Amino acid sequence: MRVYLDHNATTPLRAEARDAMIAAMDVVGNPSSVHSEGRAAKMLVERARAQVAQLVGCKTTQVIFTSSATEAAGLAVAQKGHHGGVFGALATEHDCLGVWSEVEIDLASGDLAGADLVAISAANSETGILGDAGRVIGSTAQYSTVCDITQLAGKMAVRYQAETPSYAILSAHKMGGPKGVGALINFTADDPEPVLRGGGQEMNRRSGTENVIGIAGFGAAAEASGRDVDAGRWEAVAELRNILEQTIATASEQTIFVGEDKPRLPNTTCMLTPGWKGETQVMQMDLAGFAVSAGSACSSGKVKASKVLQAMGYNDTDAASAIRVSLGLETTQEDVQRFAKAWAIKFEKHQMRAA
Amino acid sequence: MRVYLDHNATTPLRAEARDAMIAAMDVVGNPSSVHSEGRAAKMLVERARAQVAQLVGCKTTQVIFTSSATEAAGLAVAQKGHHGGVFGALATEHDCLGVWSEVEIDLASGDLAGADLVAISAANSETGILGDAGRVIGSTAQYSTVCDITQLAGKMAVRYQAETPSYAILSAHKMGGPKGVGALINFTADDPEPVLRGGGQEMNRRSGTENVIGIAGFGAAAEASGRDVDAGRWEAVAELRNILEQTIATASEQTIFVGEDKPRLPNTTCMLTPGWKGETQVMQMDLAGFAVSAGSACSSGKVKASKVLQAMGYNDTDAASAIRVSLGLETTQEDVQRFAKAWAIKFEKHQMRAA
Repeated sequence: MRVYLDHNATTPLRAEARDAMIAAMDVVGNPSSVHSEGRAAKMLVERARAQVAQLVGCKTTQVIFTSSATEAAGLAVAQKGHHGGVFGALATEHDCLGVWSEVEIDLASGDLAGADLVAISAANSETGILGDAGRVIGSTAQYSTVCDITQLAGKMAVRYQAETPSYAILSAHKMGGPKGVGALINFTADDPEPVLRGGGQEMNRRSGTENVIGIAGFGAAAEASGRDVDAGRWEAVAELRNILEQTIATASEQTIFVGEDKPRLPNTTCMLTPGWKGETQVMQMDLAGFAVSAGSACSSGKVKASKVLQAMGYNDTDAASAIRVSLGLETTQEDVQRFAKAWAIKFEKHQMRAA
Repeated sequence: MRVYLDHNATTPLRAEARDAMIAAMDVVGNPSSVHSEGRAAKMLVERARAQVAQLVGCKTTQVIFTSSATEAAGLAVAQKGHHGGVFGALATEHDCLGVWSEVEIDLASGDLAGADLVAISAANSETGILGDAGRVIGSTAQYSTVCDITQLAGKMAVRYQAETPSYAILSAHKMGGPKGVGALINFTADDPEPVLRGGGQEMNRRSGTENVIGIAGFGAAAEASGRDVDAGRWEAVAELRNILEQTIATASEQTIFVGEDKPRLPNTTCMLTPGWKGETQVMQMDLAGFAVSAGSACSSGKVKASKVLQAMGYNDTDAASAIRVSLGLETTQEDVQRFAKAWAIKFEKHQMRAA
């Protein structure tokens, strides 16, 4: 029986999302059609829009459905002209925002480097650390922000630091919804200029026939995730994460838990074991029946060390020795203990080879 | 029992697609993850890629999954710089391509108006007429083409007129797959410059975590649709469409069947009844239990007359009197006869009011 501990890469589809998607499969119409079948499809989309709005704390008209947080990021960045023209991100930002960065904001000094529109992660996907950019936000806000709440939403109550951003981006598949659906939350008074153009769906803000089945799944996942957050279900996950770290620490004195002294997501640990490559650990743990990752999923095919950890001051070798273990609501104490035990055995073998 | 006759707007999810999607719901991983769960998700995507490639007649590496034909159109148009710089479309082109048009190609003369990259519909969504742009293609090909096969693929064997285009675009939901999945087929030797940037999915050609469930449905729909085309199942649909037109013609001498003398999709009739607004017909037929449309779904919310029909030479009033009835493989002779009968009753009432 395999143990999946890579929830920051993507989550299993939760029952509520699955049920909503299967129900949506019987709805025939195109949401743009005016007949009864079309209106029924439109209703599914609008119900999901209300569910997502409720989770993230915005008006329904502020939710623009996209095919991913990545698409939402690109749509937000495309508005930079309305905010002064220069988009900047921290070196720790996820690729979906980092790829568009024209100036790099300095984590240590909080220097904006002339950026007018600034990417702000609510939680880092690799380390789980909350609000890397807090100090930037803390300064006088003479700039606009795009807040990436992809990892936070559905795990903690969504709150925006200091003040409401101009935009937020998120994705269904990090909260038990399907892959291939996301949203841009537009907190500004202006409709964004579309990147995808055509039939004028999403109130002319994003064209293309709506992913009705996926959107229905997103809505159901958002509602269920919000309920779980409110019920405090992630506190038990944080407990398991802490047990995991304590067990690993007992087996390996040299392992560093990145950001353990900082506010973090309840489900994430980024374990850095100097001298033992993260990629090797991921492969060995995979063979042993455990899914974990080295870095974020998008970049995990690459051999490079995590730029997030490098930006935090770890050297290349140490940064390359990191793995991310990310738990879900369905993770059990037994899962965590089995993982820690299997990891400790591999670690001992690694030490013997290295000695 | 309602009768759905708006298959050119979107189709019911076919059983093969539904089954593939439900099976994909149990696959947990992110296709970018290197572990076993990730590789399983990747396999689903790659199987679907092969199924789509088979349907459209290309190599698997030429298939780039997108969230819609609209997104695929935008991605193709974004490459115009590689083809000379000017993108042009006919006035009859679907909005997803038409919206990007810088010069309008003249249907009558075939004048390219300086376009280097030209939109070519394999079949028009409103009329079903095949290869509107045949005469343009027929001229010496000193230009590149984007061929919109969205309405053709899955209803007829995919063939490209005269020569292979540079790009083709299509969508799952017109062939019994889910809404929110499409593909760009890249027949050129160069990888397209991405529009959606980030993690580098789809071989760096389109970023964003893949819509695994939707893509699995697309692949299954493509395979099943190709099999149905090969089996000649659409010939029976063409028969029903012809019966429909004959029955309507008996009830109304003045109704024009647009393009009935031209090669058309087997499932489509565009009926123009001068003096009776298409929008009114759609609403009356909806109340009577039938889903049909006035114009394409994307633009059907708008009050404007079809620009496709206007470009074909119909005046505004006549163009505004059109409805599109589009059949599917599950349409029965009884469906068609019930529709024709209900329409004839409404038409008679319309005539009495008009008299």
